[in-house]
Amino acid sequence: MAKKSFYRVYNFSAGPAAIPEAVLERVRDELLDWRGLGMSVMEINHRSADYLELNQHAEILLRQLLLIPEQYRVLFLPGGASVQFSVVPMNLLRGKTTADYLNTGIWSRQAIDEAAHYCRVNIATSNDESHFTTIPDPSSWHLNSDAAYVHYTDNETAGGVEFSWVPEVGDVPLVSDMSSNILSRPIEITRFGLIYATAQKNMGPAGLSVVIVREDLLGHALPATPTVYDYRTAALHHSIYNTPPTFSCYLIGLMFEWVQQQGGVRIMAECSARKAAKLYRCIDESGGFYKNSVEVMHRSRMNIPFSLPDQVLDASFVAKAAEAGLVNLRGHRLVGGIRASLYNAMPEEGVDALIAFMQDFQQRYG
Amino acid sequence: MAKKSFYRVYNFSAGPAAIPEAVLERVRDELLDWRGLGMSVMEINHRSADYLELNQHAEILLRQLLLIPEQYRVLFLPGGASVQFSVVPMNLLRGKTTADYLNTGIWSRQAIDEAAHYCRVNIATSNDESHFTTIPDPSSWHLNSDAAYVHYTDNETAGGVEFSWVPEVGDVPLVSDMSSNILSRPIEITRFGLIYATAQKNMGPAGLSVVIVREDLLGHALPATPTVYDYRTAALHHSIYNTPPTFSCYLIGLMFEWVQQQGGVRIMAECSARKAAKLYRCIDESGGFYKNSVEVMHRSRMNIPFSLPDQVLDASFVAKAAEAGLVNLRGHRLVGGIRASLYNAMPEEGVDALIAFMQDFQQRYG
Repeated sequence: MAKKSFYRVYNFSAGPAAIPEAVLERVRDELLDWRGLGMSVMEINHRSADYLELNQHAEILLRQLLLIPEQYRVLFLPGGASVQFSVVPMNLLRGKTTADYLNTGIWSRQAIDEAAHYCRVNIATSNDESHFTTIPDPSSWHLNSDAAYVHYTDNETAGGVEFSWVPEVGDVPLVSDMSSNILSRPIEITRFGLIYATAQKNMGPAGLSVVIVREDLLGHALPATPTVYDYRTAALHHSIYNTPPTFSCYLIGLMFEWVQQQGGVRIMAECSARKAAKLYRCIDESGGFYKNSVEVMHRSRMNIPFSLPDQVLDASFVAKAAEAGLVNLRGHRLVGGIRASLYNAMPEEGVDALIAFMQDFQQRYG
Repeated sequence: MAKKSFYRVYNFSAGPAAIPEAVLERVRDELLDWRGLGMSVMEINHRSADYLELNQHAEILLRQLLLIPEQYRVLFLPGGASVQFSVVPMNLLRGKTTADYLNTGIWSRQAIDEAAHYCRVNIATSNDESHFTTIPDPSSWHLNSDAAYVHYTDNETAGGVEFSWVPEVGDVPLVSDMSSNILSRPIEITRFGLIYATAQKNMGPAGLSVVIVREDLLGHALPATPTVYDYRTAALHHSIYNTPPTFSCYLIGLMFEWVQQQGGVRIMAECSARKAAKLYRCIDESGGFYKNSVEVMHRSRMNIPFSLPDQVLDASFVAKAAEAGLVNLRGHRLVGGIRASLYNAMPEEGVDALIAFMQDFQQRYG
């Protein structure tokens, strides 16, 4: 049976998620004395030269990793994607009254429900009839040319559905929630008006979001927008209008460095494809013992949900996997079953260990 | 000359501010393996039993420290006080159109400017004529009995002005920004409708705020309020409506434990009074070389601004103090001069070292 000998487990959590050991070791080693300043990075002022450099360095690294063009601003804002669910319409309606949303799962739905506080939401397509196991063909979508923007969730963590292409939406700004797959592959930034992502999946700790926004969309926030969340204000102040979540910004910078050290997002994409392919093969070759119902071309590389023949086996699987050092495999509370999240920080050996465990478990209980 | 031998400096930053070494050491020691789970606390899911316990434990500790009665809810919300500047009116207007604000410095002013996006702000009193060096006598305040609430800043970090009493405002809910002096003395909670405080001064890292709110004020958020910041939603979900800033919540819990270990807020109040008295005595007995212009009864125990005879000496003081391991003594960028912040984490030896340095500096340059 696969068992990790080291004291750290393989953590398949969907988020907050695993962070590379090398990053955590660095955080630990400099926790009481960052850069020889005699202070923790948590204790330094956000307007000090050292912090400004940290902040700028994080932005530069992200720009390099994702090849972000100059006309896009990079913002680091407090709170996760749920905050952005409100802040996106507050900033991007720009006098319009309607926004288009693609509904491909639980997180799209949350974004839709929140946007409805601010505008009329046109659900251009929905996969709820398929129980969120597919993405309807774009030819069937009802996009509205007068929409302020089109919003979609690039990867649904609960259902395990991921876009493998960028939707074509004409001149309407395209907005994407990439919380769970940012930095896992190259992004053609110029296809988007705005991309946002919470940090706690592929970029570090909970409590911080990254926003990449095209400059011409700034400056139209609703009057009720908290100033901290007015993208234009944040851009003018390089995300230091108020005290930012400094430790989270530090950690996100370390995560960017780590991705760069691994070879960048192309390498991350190769790793992700290889890890996901292995696990889906194990599921598909189990003769129906393990089952993933997402249409093959829309299967997520990041979050792989599957189920066993009954719920008793599901529960037993989760418990015995944990004993073997493979933890947080329980499915989303609204979906059930099993879910393995394979973000960048999950090493291939972790996936190999999971597969070995799955094969062994099937032999015993299948 | 006072010089700290240990590799850690004395950090007088107004925020993000010093964190007790014992707390940082604990964070460091368990960073890769929290509670023997084989994961960092940053990597654990916010709906796991371990995290729920952490969250609950932090709330219980704060309730014990501040003797918070049952009819008050304790919330941990993403973002700092600047976010609350918006979120307070969004939640507390309750159909009313006016709120009263006391203007006692830079931070009151920011709260006022932000509130003005949501309602008519009645500035019941202002100390700007005194250049923020006093608090006008309550008999001169123009409170409005129809105000939704009365807001004041219990301690102004930039000007160094602190309330030594709780304003009497009749039946109108009293709201206080206690960002920079929470946990530095007992609070008579029932005098307040709502208290909020960002963490990065007396409670840990930036990126998190604590809100203590009387239950009957919940449930009236404006429709434009982001759901994450609807106090009622946060209360219903015990601050886990969405993914909270988990690491910050962990750290705030450790800070609460540390305050408890020191003997609680009464002891913190004694320490604060002793530290501040020493430093003011040094200033007042310097024959005018060091000068603090705040009216004595309104002097802050937390942030002590002072100036030297000219700006060249101010700059030289800051630079030479830093060489001696006494750092972040530069005044607020809008005020200038020197500022020493003496939050709970500043040990009395740090204040003694600063005073010795000040006396030495005056001998050399006075």
